[in-house]
Amino acid sequence: MITAETVFNDIKKIRKRTPLVHNITNFVVMNSTANALLCIGASPVMAHAREEVEEMVAIASALVINIGTLSGPWVESMLAAGKAAVKNGVPVVLDPVGAGATTLRTETAGRLIQETKPSVIRGNSSEILSLAESEPGKTKGVDSIHASESALQTAKRLAAEAGSVVVVSGASDFITDGENTWRVDNGVDMMGKVTGLGCTATALIGAFAAVNKDYLAASAHAMAVMGIAGELASGKSTGPGSMQVHFLDALYTIGRSEIGEKLRCAAVDG
Amino acid sequence: MITAETVFNDIKKIRKRTPLVHNITNFVVMNSTANALLCIGASPVMAHAREEVEEMVAIASALVINIGTLSGPWVESMLAAGKAAVKNGVPVVLDPVGAGATTLRTETAGRLIQETKPSVIRGNSSEILSLAESEPGKTKGVDSIHASESALQTAKRLAAEAGSVVVVSGASDFITDGENTWRVDNGVDMMGKVTGLGCTATALIGAFAAVNKDYLAASAHAMAVMGIAGELASGKSTGPGSMQVHFLDALYTIGRSEIGEKLRCAAVDG
Amino acid sequence: MITAETVFNDIKKIRKRTPLVHNITNFVVMNSTANALLCIGASPVMAHAREEVEEMVAIASALVINIGTLSGPWVESMLAAGKAAVKNGVPVVLDPVGAGATTLRTETAGRLIQETKPSVIRGNSSEILSLAESEPGKTKGVDSIHASESALQTAKRLAAEAGSVVVVSGASDFITDGENTWRVDNGVDMMGKVTGLGCTATALIGAFAAVNKDYLAASAHAMAVMGIAGELASGKSTGPGSMQVHFLDALYTIGRSEIGEKLRCAAVDG
Repeated sequence: MITAETVFNDIKKIRKRTPLVHNITNFVVMNSTANALLCIGASPVMAHAREEVEEMVAIASALVINIGTLSGPWVESMLAAGKAAVKNGVPVVLDPVGAGATTLRTETAGRLIQETKPSVIRGNSSEILSLAESEPGKTKGVDSIHASESALQTAKRLAAEAGSVVVVSGASDFITDGENTWRVDNGVDMMGKVTGLGCTATALIGAFAAVNKDYLAASAHAMAVMGIAGELASGKSTGPGSMQVHFLDALYTIGRSEIGEKLRCAAVDG
Repeated sequence: MITAETVFNDIKKIRKRTPLVHNITNFVVMNSTANALLCIGASPVMAHAREEVEEMVAIASALVINIGTLSGPWVESMLAAGKAAVKNGVPVVLDPVGAGATTLRTETAGRLIQETKPSVIRGNSSEILSLAESEPGKTKGVDSIHASESALQTAKRLAAEAGSVVVVSGASDFITDGENTWRVDNGVDMMGKVTGLGCTATALIGAFAAVNKDYLAASAHAMAVMGIAGELASGKSTGPGSMQVHFLDALYTIGRSEIGEKLRCAAVDG
Repeated sequence: MITAETVFNDIKKIRKRTPLVHNITNFVVMNSTANALLCIGASPVMAHAREEVEEMVAIASALVINIGTLSGPWVESMLAAGKAAVKNGVPVVLDPVGAGATTLRTETAGRLIQETKPSVIRGNSSEILSLAESEPGKTKGVDSIHASESALQTAKRLAAEAGSVVVVSGASDFITDGENTWRVDNGVDMMGKVTGLGCTATALIGAFAAVNKDYLAASAHAMAVMGIAGELASGKSTGPGSMQVHFLDALYTIGRSEIGEKLRCAAVDG
């Protein structure tokens, strides 16, 4: 079960253990995801050099790989880091940003899934559809053009095939391991107008996976916290600029009672 | 004519069409320009890998090239993307950040103008002077040491030679195609203390050029919106930190009436 | 002596001269450190291409090298820029982010100290300990696991050996040239939850070193301003998100009287 109690238990663990989360992520969101990880209580590090990623991931509690701004050397480092993570029992969380928009992104996401066996894959519906069906071209840049519901069956198949938890984010978030599926209905529309909140969700999944080996629950917890923090921020915000600020504050201050009041998470039948 | 009506018509088109704006820009401003593009209603994507830029630009409605943090591979990607944009009829907007400060920047800006035929070039006066006169050394890092007026004649010549709209930003902004020139007097001084607002102006020109093929008008509209958003933000700000936040909110909320009250744009004679 | 008067005199010089501070820094903090430099009154430029760093540093008043997100080509540029800085009499300020966490970082920091003779080295206690004792592995990612006091003796030895001012930041900051040591007790805990404020401290030291050749005093002034701005911001903040915003505003508005009220700086005996 996903309850306010299970969500908050993970947050308490993160705040107590401050797990090191190693990110190989895109240039756009490095600052905002590092801040989000600090605010929830984790210790972020960004490191992408081929020479150091294996050493860094070996001391980390989770590895977040995000393909938002790729280039050849970064792909090599992502693969090397991911393999080292597997060897060290460190969970890998993959964000296939823009998969479906270009061949490089679709193929790199595919290689990362094959070669690093991510514990969790989080994308919007366009990205998840493009991963599973090898039909590039469905993604408009990095924004989805489908409702998250439309990717649910594909997500289940991908989860079963890849042995990963798959998260499809959108107005409703779906979190599935192929058999069991959770739906999180927290969040507000304006979150789509803040760049990189999808990437932040992926980074937070890394923090939760670092303290909870039940990756299905950890992912649902992270998505719930994202949405609730967005709701808390939206009441104080006059636009996406202030939303970004209040969202970080909400991650920092979020407590048991707010989660209890706001959590909207349910099991999905079938 | 540039009127509140023409400015707001473009904004409405951007909000309705959410044009994909492909940015190859500098590391400093990727986050803030992505947020500004989202706030005005566009869909930003950052992609710089040589392997994917042509594919990405082919699905975009504008390409923004910004040389603020160059290196060899990025220059190659900029040139390839720019050429692909021309081939696909996608407008190219160039920001020659720091041209005049180093040979690499001045020469790269020159190559990009020659080889990608930008629809619009936006810089501060030092950058524009360095482009047209091949006199590197006039720029102090990335900040201008000249008033924008001093670069107006040079901007007109550059516009005529390059077949581009040229925008010189400063306390007054000048927008010229070599024959017709607009002057925008919106904005506040404190905008110069927020890093990358010049780059944001260039990115917004990309969004306006994506919906308005009259690039002279599109550029003037974008500069007016920048300045008005800055004025709206400054009333709520206690420094550049809060200004950056309120500026994004203002881009998101800006409406017809605020533009009508604040727009200060006039044709320049001669 | 470090007094409110000496601190504010340097700020006045920075605001008057707007010194160009050349940064070769990490992707995470480029935006936030550029904004901090603008807010205190300096003119930041980021440039990392091997082709241009020597030309850029030759027109700069300080060079800030930060190894937070390394890769091979960046290391080469850092070394070339540092050597050019020495040749041009431009002070080099080094931030050995994550030294001790990976071999690449520890060795690169060591090479930079040997080959570019930094005027100032600023790190947290884990980083400083790893530099002086060649005992990698003490750093948890980029966060310190030691109190700053524990690195003071090591900092003194490193300062004497390297001929650098060494700054160990933490709850208390220590600034030493090996013989004379200042302790700054300004700042608030929440600053540790905003990514890159350590990097911002290093960048501000660059701005102060650009106007004050007494690098021990310049570094103490910068650390005092960091801490005081943090205290001013914390009263207005509800979390690290708003703290980051108000911190920048405080750098912009900070005046003689606030420094006089809040400065807590004392000489350390022995």
